[in-house]
Amino acid sequence: MNEIDTSTDNTWLSPDDLEQVRAQMPIVYVEAVPVRVDAVGNVTKIGLLLRQAADGTISRLIVSGRVIHGERVRDALLRHCEKDLGPLALPRIPVNPAPFTIAEYFPNGELTGFHDPRQHAVSLVYIVQVDGECEPTQEALDLAWFTPDEIVSAGLIAQMTGGQDRLLRVALAHVGQLP
Amino acid sequence: MNEIDTSTDNTWLSPDDLEQVRAQMPIVYVEAVPVRVDAVGNVTKIGLLLRQAADGTISRLIVSGRVIHGERVRDALLRHCEKDLGPLALPRIPVNPAPFTIAEYFPNGELTGFHDPRQHAVSLVYIVQVDGECEPTQEALDLAWFTPDEIVSAGLIAQMTGGQDRLLRVALAHVGQLP
Amino acid sequence: MNEIDTSTDNTWLSPDDLEQVRAQMPIVYVEAVPVRVDAVGNVTKIGLLLRQAADGTISRLIVSGRVIHGERVRDALLRHCEKDLGPLALPRIPVNPAPFTIAEYFPNGELTGFHDPRQHAVSLVYIVQVDGECEPTQEALDLAWFTPDEIVSAGLIAQMTGGQDRLLRVALAHVGQLP
Amino acid sequence: MNEIDTSTDNTWLSPDDLEQVRAQMPIVYVEAVPVRVDAVGNVTKIGLLLRQAADGTISRLIVSGRVIHGERVRDALLRHCEKDLGPLALPRIPVNPAPFTIAEYFPNGELTGFHDPRQHAVSLVYIVQVDGECEPTQEALDLAWFTPDEIVSAGLIAQMTGGQDRLLRVALAHVGQLP
Repeated sequence: MNEIDTSTDNTWLSPDDLEQVRAQMPIVYVEAVPVRVDAVGNVTKIGLLLRQAADGTISRLIVSGRVIHGERVRDALLRHCEKDLGPLALPRIPVNPAPFTIAEYFPNGELTGFHDPRQHAVSLVYIVQVDGECEPTQEALDLAWFTPDEIVSAGLIAQMTGGQDRLLRVALAHVGQLP
Repeated sequence: MNEIDTSTDNTWLSPDDLEQVRAQMPIVYVEAVPVRVDAVGNVTKIGLLLRQAADGTISRLIVSGRVIHGERVRDALLRHCEKDLGPLALPRIPVNPAPFTIAEYFPNGELTGFHDPRQHAVSLVYIVQVDGECEPTQEALDLAWFTPDEIVSAGLIAQMTGGQDRLLRVALAHVGQLP
Repeated sequence: MNEIDTSTDNTWLSPDDLEQVRAQMPIVYVEAVPVRVDAVGNVTKIGLLLRQAADGTISRLIVSGRVIHGERVRDALLRHCEKDLGPLALPRIPVNPAPFTIAEYFPNGELTGFHDPRQHAVSLVYIVQVDGECEPTQEALDLAWFTPDEIVSAGLIAQMTGGQDRLLRVALAHVGQLP
Repeated sequence: MNEIDTSTDNTWLSPDDLEQVRAQMPIVYVEAVPVRVDAVGNVTKIGLLLRQAADGTISRLIVSGRVIHGERVRDALLRHCEKDLGPLALPRIPVNPAPFTIAEYFPNGELTGFHDPRQHAVSLVYIVQVDGECEPTQEALDLAWFTPDEIVSAGLIAQMTGGQDRLLRVALAHVGQLP
């Protein structure tokens, strides 16, 4: 998952306090798989950011971030999509509040296959259709769109860490596009 | 569910043949709950047609129709949305091919609470966001939009038959808007 | 939601620390709707505890509790089911890790309809089939089973707080048993 | 999908009539992925039959069959599980009536990746926990249980046809066990 954007998220919690809480409690995250669709709802492309992942490597990953105190999950989803995809992305937040899957990130990645060295995070994962123009924010080096076939290719999987490749295959399965 | 639009659906099956098949096999239907949403995906309005229902009464009901031989469920959803809501409705077919619920219509409505005197229909039901301009087609007398509170009001429930009111409450529950 | 069972959950976090974290972060909860089913999967009964709710009243409510640091959601579900329903309940944890809905509890209950005066909790809600013998634990005064019709009756709704009645209607809708 | 068991399913429809209907209408099917689970709901094994598939080959496949006129989907699921897994299988039909995915089988398999030379079938697919003793029925040569890793192995994929291997990967993704 992404590094936290300290400028917007943490005004209410100092880095030290966040560090301490992370050692004691699971943290609520949202993740969004940005997709382009055709007229009958088939996913044609998946958008991936190129940026620093939780483990410090430069990786391909989806939109993600914390839910803050007092914030609804829907609002967190919109906020992180706009933060990561730019103000003109026009993300379509799903009507169903339930995530299509959850990803449980642990410092010990062997527990679930999802790994985050910083914390235990319970991530609610959604598919988000994106209609507008996307641009990588300053934190990201790139934002690129891939077909379902490319998502499961060895070349792209090698650019992902922490279980993101597996999460994307689960997303493709959910939308009926797992090759 | 709607009367079949014989002009477009049945060119490949005569009314007599359809009658005979209906007595022998469950028929595959799709139904779509047309919704308007706000920027964070909350359903604000549900669209209902006013037209002749399967039992012959003039009722409020959602988009519905058969899946024809050789047609994908996605394509049937789009076709029926365009047929019932007009060519400018811009329906957004969901990315997940699984319906959020199924409704099993029987000539004996007591079996499941869903009633269709003509047939045993297995209906795959979807929430469909509609962004564009909707207009009732020639088969419908009206198309109107209602809030979640209105959908569960006694006045509107009295205008629905065959279990449509209950199906709408299930839809509202699914999107987190059941009052 | 239930009072936290401090004997088992909080050995790693003092009441003061928990208080402080609750003021800063959303807390991850799981909730389980205990159900009895017939041979074809129809829900016939829903189990409700009678105990002190988050708002201090004695209420009817479902199984709930926090996910602790390092614990998988599945394990938290099993732990809380065993804690609230007794060691012989034989709860069947769902195969799908995604909850059927989420409930977002806020100190301000008007935001979502789900209210918890102590905290902002993001609750992952599951249906859990229970085959075995259930008995209320020492924290609960009673454990009783109700039909879907009883769950939506005015008499029982009056015994629930914090939005539990609405959450149960969403659960009934999900399993096709909303009256 | 399986050959139809004409002795039980077709008393109401002659083979000729079935042939004719199949040329005109999509047919409603149910499919069940039989699974063994551990105490916290993790799928540990998937059961596959070895029998004649729709394309005439001897293949590994899951439980499947038609929904007949007047029959509820739940009842069809139970009937086919008992038919294919034996009378002591004790299948647990899911509480949610919605399938976790649908598989659309066409004579032209390129349309969706799901292929059935005999018909256009719309299949509602469910995960079914099986607690009891299973035995292959007379129509099947074998019934064997495989781990998630084995399900996605090249050796086993080579024994499946019609898209069953892909359907199983979608099932594994749904339960959080896709390797």
